[in-house]
Amino acid sequence: MGIRTTALLAASTLLLISANTQAADIEAGKAKAATCTACHGVEGASTNDMWPNLKGQKAGYLSKQIKAFKDGSRKDPLMSSMASSLSDADIENVAAYFSSLK
Amino acid sequence: MGIRTTALLAASTLLLISANTQAADIEAGKAKAATCTACHGVEGASTNDMWPNLKGQKAGYLSKQIKAFKDGSRKDPLMSSMASSLSDADIENVAAYFSSLK
Repeated sequence: MGIRTTALLAASTLLLISANTQAADIEAGKAKAATCTACHGVEGASTNDMWPNLKGQKAGYLSKQIKAFKDGSRKDPLMSSMASSLSDADIENVAAYFSSLK
Repeated sequence: MGIRTTALLAASTLLLISANTQAADIEAGKAKAATCTACHGVEGASTNDMWPNLKGQKAGYLSKQIKAFKDGSRKDPLMSSMASSLSDADIENVAAYFSSLK
């Protein structure tokens, strides 16, 4: 096996590992999202005109906003507190869960 | 007609006038929302993972966010600029339009 082939294989393996560890876990997100339903409704269908629906929302947008609440670049009395308890993995999982709902 | 009845009628009339002047104009909102489609997609269905869907979103939430972009309490390079050109009536109309989409 040549050096190039070995390097390619190593790179592919790293990519696969990376893809695996970054893949969001929708089931874990669903469990973590139980708290969210108090305001954002069952399965992300809000019953309050001032709180957004989350069902079917873009995952990238959701995770960016939760991270913004967590780091303080977006401010909201409720969401700043909620987001502070979520890890980066939690955020990706919760975003993937709401995004998966139709 | 007694004083009570007259007062009630006057109050009802005021309420009706108030409801009329505050009612959002979905058609006007649709016309004004043409610019939004560049990022938020046709009829508020975004094709970019980082930009939110707006179709079916809560009107109160949408108008609150557009106003927050306009007054600077929520910041985004694109939305801050977009929101600055909208009047309060435009904002209510655009929010009502996107909220009306299924």
